[in-house]
Amino acid sequence: MFKFELLHQSKKSSARVGKIHTPHGVIDTPNFVAVGTNGTLKALDNATVSDIGLQLMFCNTYHLLLQPGTQVIKEAGGLHTFIHRKLPIITDSGGFQVFSLAYGSVADELKSRGNKSTGNLVIKIDEEGVLFRSYRDGSKVLLTPETSVQAQKDFGADIIIPFDELPPYHIKNDALEISLARTHRWEKRSLDTHLKARNNQAMYGVIHGGINLDLRKLSCETLTKLDFDGYAIGGSMGKTKQEMHSILTHTLPLLPKEKPNHLLGIGDLESIDRGIALGIDTFDSSYPTRAARHGVALSWKGQVKLTRSENASHFGPIDKKCACSTCQRFSLAYLHHLFKAKELSALTLASIHNLHFMVEYMATLREKIAQGLI
Amino acid sequence: MFKFELLHQSKKSSARVGKIHTPHGVIDTPNFVAVGTNGTLKALDNATVSDIGLQLMFCNTYHLLLQPGTQVIKEAGGLHTFIHRKLPIITDSGGFQVFSLAYGSVADELKSRGNKSTGNLVIKIDEEGVLFRSYRDGSKVLLTPETSVQAQKDFGADIIIPFDELPPYHIKNDALEISLARTHRWEKRSLDTHLKARNNQAMYGVIHGGINLDLRKLSCETLTKLDFDGYAIGGSMGKTKQEMHSILTHTLPLLPKEKPNHLLGIGDLESIDRGIALGIDTFDSSYPTRAARHGVALSWKGQVKLTRSENASHFGPIDKKCACSTCQRFSLAYLHHLFKAKELSALTLASIHNLHFMVEYMATLREKIAQGLI
Repeated sequence: MFKFELLHQSKKSSARVGKIHTPHGVIDTPNFVAVGTNGTLKALDNATVSDIGLQLMFCNTYHLLLQPGTQVIKEAGGLHTFIHRKLPIITDSGGFQVFSLAYGSVADELKSRGNKSTGNLVIKIDEEGVLFRSYRDGSKVLLTPETSVQAQKDFGADIIIPFDELPPYHIKNDALEISLARTHRWEKRSLDTHLKARNNQAMYGVIHGGINLDLRKLSCETLTKLDFDGYAIGGSMGKTKQEMHSILTHTLPLLPKEKPNHLLGIGDLESIDRGIALGIDTFDSSYPTRAARHGVALSWKGQVKLTRSENASHFGPIDKKCACSTCQRFSLAYLHHLFKAKELSALTLASIHNLHFMVEYMATLREKIAQGLI
Repeated sequence: MFKFELLHQSKKSSARVGKIHTPHGVIDTPNFVAVGTNGTLKALDNATVSDIGLQLMFCNTYHLLLQPGTQVIKEAGGLHTFIHRKLPIITDSGGFQVFSLAYGSVADELKSRGNKSTGNLVIKIDEEGVLFRSYRDGSKVLLTPETSVQAQKDFGADIIIPFDELPPYHIKNDALEISLARTHRWEKRSLDTHLKARNNQAMYGVIHGGINLDLRKLSCETLTKLDFDGYAIGGSMGKTKQEMHSILTHTLPLLPKEKPNHLLGIGDLESIDRGIALGIDTFDSSYPTRAARHGVALSWKGQVKLTRSENASHFGPIDKKCACSTCQRFSLAYLHHLFKAKELSALTLASIHNLHFMVEYMATLREKIAQGLI
């Protein structure tokens, strides 16, 4: 069922246009992947998300494991049925979140926030996996390559991710090497678990190696030897867009052209522009919805800060050319008012606009690549 | 443009079925009126509200005066255009809120919460009106019969309300008499202001008198002599449903049968059942949306507490027979999960259900009255 179709390869750059075929439909690439951590986007129901045209939704195994739990989703008939989404879903392994608990997120670290107070929830990390306490009820949860893949099989997402370690940004090379070797063993165990009960799900290997280009190369070499359906690029991408750019420039040529790839957790417009030219197929990010909830609307002319007083009597839409249901119906002045009045509907309306913008933005980029402009 | 059409008068009770014709369409009565204080319902956009079939929406002049202000709404072309609602709107005078600032709300008082901390925002109450400070920017705002009606004319709601005083529940009879006499003078001034610049808006007089039946009678006699298009019943309705019942039983026969009436701020199911049999035409209440945000779904079998653990694996909808877009798409288990995960979409989906229920509930009551069952 899973197939990647390469429709066009740019001669100007590494950009490419393709289609990922999945059991729940097609994902045109390059594309933006909406993040719906708990099986819903923030402030939007899943029917609206599909109406907007978001072809792939990213759900987080860590969160779903703890609430509502694997059993409920399995009994419901899988994640698609449970959350009422007919289009493709990708789930991650839970590794990212559980190691964020242990080490603090990369963002925490770069901002010197240190470890989160939730750090003590992790009881043990060893070769088997990670034992941690549920933040919900204090019960012990063991996340291993096998349990993560089993959970993702119970969820039934179209694309699943092997269990991996997210090492901290500030890590010495020898420690990073040790972490990478274990991640590779974990990914192999994940793939074996997946293949033993192969169904119509696809599994993407996750390239690690942090900011060490040699280790990135090693990761590509190791993982491309395994029968993954595609590759995701994870781990620390450095402190700056330039650093990310150089890691991607180095890494992408080492991935097989006939398989799709995904850039994990990065999806601001600048990174998308840069990533596409380097050959990235899909990007997931909560940026557009988070920006919306902070009153920032995306537009072709740049960001529109909805709460700025100059917008109080701007009776046109955010963007005259925008076809989203928010711009078709509501003025910037009204959105400004809803934000000022702290109304929940403001969050929904701004999120609809930003996600619609992302859908349009990606369609335009695909068109530009096809036309040889990128 | 404004007209009340009495379609059916019950022989069994004072219940009646009718149609209120307004410049923005028809309101079938008896009906439930959704409260959209700031020009939006909580967690719902106005297009969804209209789709649900809510024929009349209640907006609060006090809130809109302070944010976004009369000028913005006027410039937008009126409230309907500003909030993108094509169906009828009713606005109140601001009196209720400004006197809640001064005296504390009736609910505060009955629960012995005393005056709100915002009490000191009111600077002066005299024959002219009320001078208070905006909670937004500290500026002084003078609310009088004339300024309230002018604001409501600028907003352009289909039905508007004269400026009135909301006396505290614990008030002595002589003070209540003084308050009532001033309210009557204010309502007369409001009506004069309205009629001087008569447009296609309708104005409902507000019957006061608190829990004093003689004063309720006096209020009906005084206000029905004036050329109001309908009557709202306001002020304190007592501590219990029984007390409210006896006030309404006493008051409603004193109102003209050929004009529509409205019960202000009360709309729980029991009060609706009782009120309808006494001849109430419309009820406004934020109860269904507030209940939804607290995880309480309304149904023909009673309230469903969405967060109860027994609902975690209930894979049917809240109500199998419910045609709302929530029940058509999402299971009780998923809603339970969204509430547990503190997702904003939970609030929207539950609100859609509860408002749809209210629309169905009122349609069923109209049908029952027409069939001679009430």
